[in-house]
Parts: sequence; C-alpha cells; structure tokens
Amino acid sequence: MRRNMVLMIISGSYARGISPYKVLTMDSINENIVKMKYAVRGPLLQKSSKIIADLAKGVKKPFKEVIMTNLGNPQAMGQPPITFIRQMVATTLYKDLLNDECIPCDVRKRANEILHDTLGESLGSYTHSQGIQVIRQHVANYIMKRDGECSTVDPEDIFLSDGASSMIKTILSLYATEDECEMPTGCLLSVPQYPLYSASTTAYGLRKIDYYLDESENWGLSIAELKRAINEAKDDCIPRFLVIINPGNPTGQVLTKENIEDTIKFAYEEKLLILADEVYQDNIYDEDSEFHSIKKVMVEMGEPYSNMELISFNSASKGYAGECGFRGGYAEFFNIDKNIKDMIIKMVSVMLCPNAVGQIILDGIICPPIKGDLSYRLYMEEKEEILDNLATKAEKITEMLNDIDGIECNTVQGALYAFPKIKLPKKFIKEARKNKRAGDEEFCMQFLDAKGVTVIPGTGFGQVHGTYHFRTTILPPLKKLEYVVSALDDFYEKIKKKYN
Amino acid sequence: MRRNMVLMIISGSYARGISPYKVLTMDSINENIVKMKYAVRGPLLQKSSKIIADLAKGVKKPFKEVIMTNLGNPQAMGQPPITFIRQMVATTLYKDLLNDECIPCDVRKRANEILHDTLGESLGSYTHSQGIQVIRQHVANYIMKRDGECSTVDPEDIFLSDGASSMIKTILSLYATEDECEMPTGCLLSVPQYPLYSASTTAYGLRKIDYYLDESENWGLSIAELKRAINEAKDDCIPRFLVIINPGNPTGQVLTKENIEDTIKFAYEEKLLILADEVYQDNIYDEDSEFHSIKKVMVEMGEPYSNMELISFNSASKGYAGECGFRGGYAEFFNIDKNIKDMIIKMVSVMLCPNAVGQIILDGIICPPIKGDLSYRLYMEEKEEILDNLATKAEKITEMLNDIDGIECNTVQGALYAFPKIKLPKKFIKEARKNKRAGDEEFCMQFLDAKGVTVIPGTGFGQVHGTYHFRTTILPPLKKLEYVVSALDDFYEKIKKKYN
Repeated sequence: MRRNMVLMIISGSYARGISPYKVLTMDSINENIVKMKYAVRGPLLQKSSKIIADLAKGVKKPFKEVIMTNLGNPQAMGQPPITFIRQMVATTLYKDLLNDECIPCDVRKRANEILHDTLGESLGSYTHSQGIQVIRQHVANYIMKRDGECSTVDPEDIFLSDGASSMIKTILSLYATEDECEMPTGCLLSVPQYPLYSASTTAYGLRKIDYYLDESENWGLSIAELKRAINEAKDDCIPRFLVIINPGNPTGQVLTKENIEDTIKFAYEEKLLILADEVYQDNIYDEDSEFHSIKKVMVEMGEPYSNMELISFNSASKGYAGECGFRGGYAEFFNIDKNIKDMIIKMVSVMLCPNAVGQIILDGIICPPIKGDLSYRLYMEEKEEILDNLATKAEKITEMLNDIDGIECNTVQGALYAFPKIKLPKKFIKEARKNKRAGDEEFCMQFLDAKGVTVIPGTGFGQVHGTYHFRTTILPPLKKLEYVVSALDDFYEKIKKKYN
Repeated sequence: MRRNMVLMIISGSYARGISPYKVLTMDSINENIVKMKYAVRGPLLQKSSKIIADLAKGVKKPFKEVIMTNLGNPQAMGQPPITFIRQMVATTLYKDLLNDECIPCDVRKRANEILHDTLGESLGSYTHSQGIQVIRQHVANYIMKRDGECSTVDPEDIFLSDGASSMIKTILSLYATEDECEMPTGCLLSVPQYPLYSASTTAYGLRKIDYYLDESENWGLSIAELKRAINEAKDDCIPRFLVIINPGNPTGQVLTKENIEDTIKFAYEEKLLILADEVYQDNIYDEDSEFHSIKKVMVEMGEPYSNMELISFNSASKGYAGECGFRGGYAEFFNIDKNIKDMIIKMVSVMLCPNAVGQIILDGIICPPIKGDLSYRLYMEEKEEILDNLATKAEKITEMLNDIDGIECNTVQGALYAFPKIKLPKKFIKEARKNKRAGDEEFCMQFLDAKGVTVIPGTGFGQVHGTYHFRTTILPPLKKLEYVVSALDDFYEKIKKKYN
C-alpha cells in the first residue's frame, strides 16, 4: 500500500486531488512524449502561422507573403499534379466517370482494374490491411524493373501504408522499451537526419546512436565513423537498426554504390538491420549521380549479404508526383521472418487499412502508362517538366548559396533540399543563448521576422557541435527561390555588420 | 558487463549469434505486441480469405460465396455511396470537374471552398496537422447543431484523423508504460468491447479493467458493476480512462440519458476521463431510443460535471455514409489542458497530417447540403434509404435470431451489429477445447466451413465466463441476411443433434 502511495505521488496523480482535478496532465503522461522533438513543424512554424494570419488581417510587415521553404510539400509551392494520377483517382471514386468520354480510356481501364480488386467494387470498403492486391503486384513489378533481373519480389512482402512515416514508426515500435531494467534497442541515425527518426526513437524509448555524415565528402557515410558510433554505444544498448536516408534528407546527397557496399558490409558485421529510407529515389539531379537501391546492391553482392534482412520505404509524397496530402507509401520486407511479418499484419489490422486513395495515388506513380497508352505522352511530359525544373533549381541554389560570403553548400545531387553551413558571428550566438536558442535557431527566427521566409535551423536535424546550418527546400518557383536567397544574403549581411 | 550479457541473452540477442542471424526475432521484440490480439481480422479471416481464393480457383464447397458479416464494412456488402460526397471529393482532386456541368453547382462551390483552404489549392499538399481549418469549423458547427445551444465548440479543439482508430490509439499511447516499476494507467473497458481498445491497451502496457455490460438490461451500464471493477483494480494501477461505446459495438444498444448521467457521476467521483466512442451516433433504429452525446449530457448536468475532461470520437466509416476505405474521422477535445493538446499536435505532426481525402469525405457527412441546394433532395433520399434499410434489417435480425431455439438476442437498437447469446452443447465445448479453441471460436470456424459465413466469436470481444456469443453485422442485403440466419439455424440444429 505504502509503495502504491509513493508511486501515485511520483506519477502525478497527487496533483489530481486539487480541485478542479485534471486527468491528463503533463506530469502524468509518458515522459518520452514530452521529451520528443519534431523540428519540421515546431515553434518556427507556429510563428509563421501567426504571421500569415496577421498578413491576412492587414497587419503591415516588411514583406507581402510568407514563403514556406520548411517542408517538402511540392504542390503547396505550386507544383502541378500529374493529370493521369488525378483522373484515375477521380474515376475510381466517382464511378459515373467510368462512362465519361472526358476521361481517357486507359485511365478508365486502370480504374476498373483497381475497383475490381476492392470489396463491393468501392473505395468506400476497407481494403486488405496490407493494401489492395493488384497495387502490391504493381509495386513488386516496379521494384523488379528498377533493380533488374536479380531481384524477385513477392507481393506478400509489400505493405502499402499511409505515407512512408506510418510504417517506419510501426517498425521502430516493435522495439518500444517496456521496462527500464532492459537494454534498449539501439538505432544508428545519421547526423543530420530527418527528425521523424529522432522523434520516434525518443517516443519509443529506443537509444539513438548518432553517426555523423562527412560534410567534406559531400555528406557521405564514413565506415570509421559508423564503427566509432556503434562501439561507443554498445555498453548501453543492443544496436539493431541502421537508418540510411538516400538520397539524403536534409542533406541532398546521393550515395555512391561503393559507399553503399561498404555500409552493407558494416551492417553485416555488426548484425544490423538496415532501414532504407529511399523516398527520394526519383529525385536525382546531378549528372554524375545515380540512385542505387540498397536492396539491389545487397542482392548483387551475393551471399552472405543477399541473405540479410532489409526494409525499404518509398512514398507518393516525394519523387515527381509530390502527392503529400494523400498519404500514400509502401514498404518492402526483404528476408524478414514470417512471424514478424504476421506481427506487422496484426499491428496494421488494428488500424484496419491504409487509406484507399493513397494506395491508388501510389499506383499511378509506380505503374505509369506505357508507350501506346493514350495518357503516355502527357504523363511523360508532365513528369519531365517537374524533374527538369527541380534539377535547374538544385543547380541554381547550390551556386547562389555558395556565392554568399560565409555560406558553404554541398552540391544538391538529389532529394528536395539544400543544407548549407553558415558562419555566425560569436556575439550573435551569445545573444541567441540569452533567448535560450542555438545560433541557427535565432537566425531562422529573425530571418522569418525580417523577410517572411521559413527555413529550418540545423539544430532540428543535428549537426557537428559548433557548426550552424539550415535546411531550405528547392521547391518554390525559381523567381521565389531567387528572392529567398537574395533576402537571405541581405539579412545575413546585416547580421554580419551588426555583430562582427 | 556481466549484467549486460545476461540481459542480452534474455532479450533474445544470443540467438542472433547462430548463422544465418536474424535481427527481427519473435523473442526480441516488445512482448506486448506479441500478446496483443485483434479478433475482427484474426485467424477466422485468414481462413475465409483462403476459402475465397479456393472458390475462385474452382474448388468445390457446399456454398457458392463467402458472406463476410465479420466487419462493419457497409460498401463491401453493396451499400451505395452518397452521390454528393463522392462528387465533392472527385471535384476537389481533379479540378477539371470544377468547370464541368455534370457536377452540380453546389458541389463545385463546396469543392472550391475547401480547396481555398488548402496550401497551393491542392489536396496534394500536406494539410494542417490538425486538419483543414474550414472542415474543423464545419465539425464544430455540426456538434453545436447536434447538442443544442448550451454547447459551444472551438475548431481548435477539433482534431481530424485517419478514421477514429488512429486518434484513439494516440490518446491511449500518452500513458504507454515506460517502466515496469511504475504503476500502469488503468483503462475501464466494457465486456464485450470493440477489440481496438483491448489491443491498444495491451500494446501500450496499460491495465485493462473489465466492467461487464448487463445483458439482461439490454447491455446497459451498471454503476454497481463499474464500482466493483474499479475497486478491484485500484491496487494494481491508476485508473484514468473510462471507455464508453454508444451506440454499442458489438452489442448494438443505445444508452439512455439516465444511464449516461449516472456514468458521468461515477467518472467524476473516480476522477476518470471518459473516452466517448460515438462513431455510430447516426445509426439509431429503435423508435424508443435516442442518441445522447456524452458531451451534451455533461454540459446539461452543469457544474462540476460540465468542467470534466472528455474526448469524443466520430468517424466517416460508419453512420449512413459507410466510407471506411477513406479513413476519415475526428475527435473533439473538451476541457483538455492546453499543454496536452500541444503534445497531441506534436504527435500528429510527426505523421505530418491526416489524409486529405478522408477529411473531405467527413466534411460531406457533417456538413450536408441544406434545403435549397441542388444536391439536397438526392442526398436526403439516399441517406434515408440507407438508414431505413438498416432499420428494417436491425428489426428483422433481432426477430429471426430470437426465433431460433437456443439463441437469445437483445434488440438491435443502433450501430451495425447483433450480438446474440448461443447455448452450446457441453460435449461440443469439450471437443473445442481439444482444438485449443473456446466453444464459440470452434462454432464460428465450423460454421464458416459448412456455410461460408464469417461471424466473429464472442471470445474476441469478451463475455461472461461460461456464456457464448457471436457478432454479426446487419449489413448484407436482406435476402443474404435471411440466408445467413437460416444457414445458422440449419448448422446449429446439426450441432445440437450431434452433441446433445
């Protein structure tokens, strides 16, 4: 009894005795959730929402609009959708269009094919928890085409999901810590990294093992650094996961085949499962870069590497389609134990199914019209225009940023981001500390206030101590992107003058 | 070091030394996930999938098709979608339809209004993590209209979600147990209950506190029983949540206002937060029953009850629309601490946003066309036809089931289910035990084999020890539902003959 009383006080329920009591209190909830951080939609975004609201009310600001370069949200920045994909979704869900001449016949055919594979021929039915069968087959075909003959894929190893994020979270939650006395699972995360990973490892009580990407080697993976990281962590946890984001977020690099091979060997030696975040696999701009899927490299390396477990993720939100709002994605399970797959099926079943429209959007991306189809030409034109546009901006932003004295930016080889390093005056950093902010956090906050541009401070992604970065997307139209960089130049110039 | 070695063996990593090693193993993952059960899509469904595949291959069976009455999946059973809703979604996502005369002008107006509130005027953009603003306002209006003048709702207290399930899981995860030495949070769940709750409490290490619904009082809540349940549990946990499903799943009852008032008083005395699962609020068939939202009753009771915390859930998957596949839903936060809401916003932000189409489907339900709108008449006709149809089947199935000797079924007052009690011969139950199944599990498995009908055994929902039930939806078309009951009668007769 006494033990219970003490515990009740610790867990915050004592405070509930005071009237009016509250059940949900900050001191009673799981503290990992309190600790969890997610920079991409954090305080900076709250500030920008407030500024947008102020502008709408007519409040005067030194700018007319807020340019949101914080999030990989292409269509929010004006990127148009692919016509075929939208037609297909509209037709599957409003079936009058199946007989409408304004919809091309290949679209209607595909819509019929998908509807045939849903219960009651309706998207209003829950789908299979793993996703619609014909779409999983299309994903399998896509991977086999991408990776060449050596790769075979069983649709039963494909899990469609609400974006890539939901399945990544589900996998990590397999090792949620139940018990403080137990050794937590270690998860090797790059620094910098996409904060979904740090947020989820924190929430589930996993141990984050930081390995630093080599900025001087265009954000490549260094095996020596991976070894250092894992060796330092082994006493505190059981390392199980190695997260690789390729092309990189927030860093925009594309890993070389050799770099991937070395990393696979390291993972094999250390008995790690690679989580391959390959959501930007279609976003390659640099002419000397090529996307190599980790699956393909693993299979080509032969045994024992081709027997390693691997889970790879892809998304409808990135690539050229940029269909973020629909939350479509998939995961491929490679060499994963059948019992574990059954656990995952059980876990996703509790949520019934991934949303049906996200699945169909994904289908339009991984199974585009082929030569001879009525929609083929338009699809290819739209796709190429989007990718050419991104490639132009990737090159331009690298150039423009490097033209600014005090800023250094690696070539944006892929993905949707530049992650430049910025020298900040010591006095500025000191002043930031007074506001309880890191130098880059203060810089981004003030930049937003002065110029109406939201870029995310490097602190949100992680960086070498004492260095400062920020992440900007390459998504605004070129004119706006040019404004972003010139506004940055101007603002930075003033900071340098004031604090140096 | 020694401690670590021992722990590594316990947590299964010892086995990884054996070649070929596996990282993801059943003995290394969180054991709560292994323990977790979810009956609605469990072994019975795997069996039915196999039978469906066999039938498709031409394998002979004593039936021509499998009738899936296991899941509240209306459109899978042929229920048509509401035209207005589908037109609106098609128009928002394929914008050529904004100028198409085949789409009624009120639909186009609504589509424009919603698009105006999305970034880049596209559903392809991530929405606000809490959901599209104008839709949250519509939800607030809906609740105020439903609950009358005393209820005010701030759209900031509305969270749109991927179905109701995802937000229910998020709330429960606030109290995921980090540490075995800590008192777990207790969650009062009805017996029987919808297994999302038992699955989630197991997964998060919450303590499930069973309270039995009173079958003899048409599955009403008994305060004496609630008190018994909580008093027996208090030494092992800190009770925080009381889950109320009204109308009931799997039990189909509609709670009276008095019953709700007494339950609110109980929750107040015991300092519990009510989670009000009201996803069937539009599914009321019994003429003497009326839906009372817990929010409304709480507010009408005045202080101190009107100051209590409450979280209520609603879904696009149920009601008359039955749009399950789109995963739309919302939660209303009432009297919840601002800091806790911020935590929830952070948690949903990691997943970026609920899917945009699910949000729009929901909008079509909670903000239907009004008198004078072009789509009004058709909408109302379609809605009424669906609800009349369900009401007819609710009455019919209660009658038909009660006509079978050995089966007793409470009136299906609401929701989509009947949950009859069935007397099973002692010998049959003994034989089931040999197959490691409860009597009702064996009955449902054999019934599926013999007649091609999937009903879910009461074991999956919970029931008084020594009683047996099953859940069937009322969704198949009347003719099929009649077949289901006559097939049941026939099969049950044979069981009785063989084992009595």
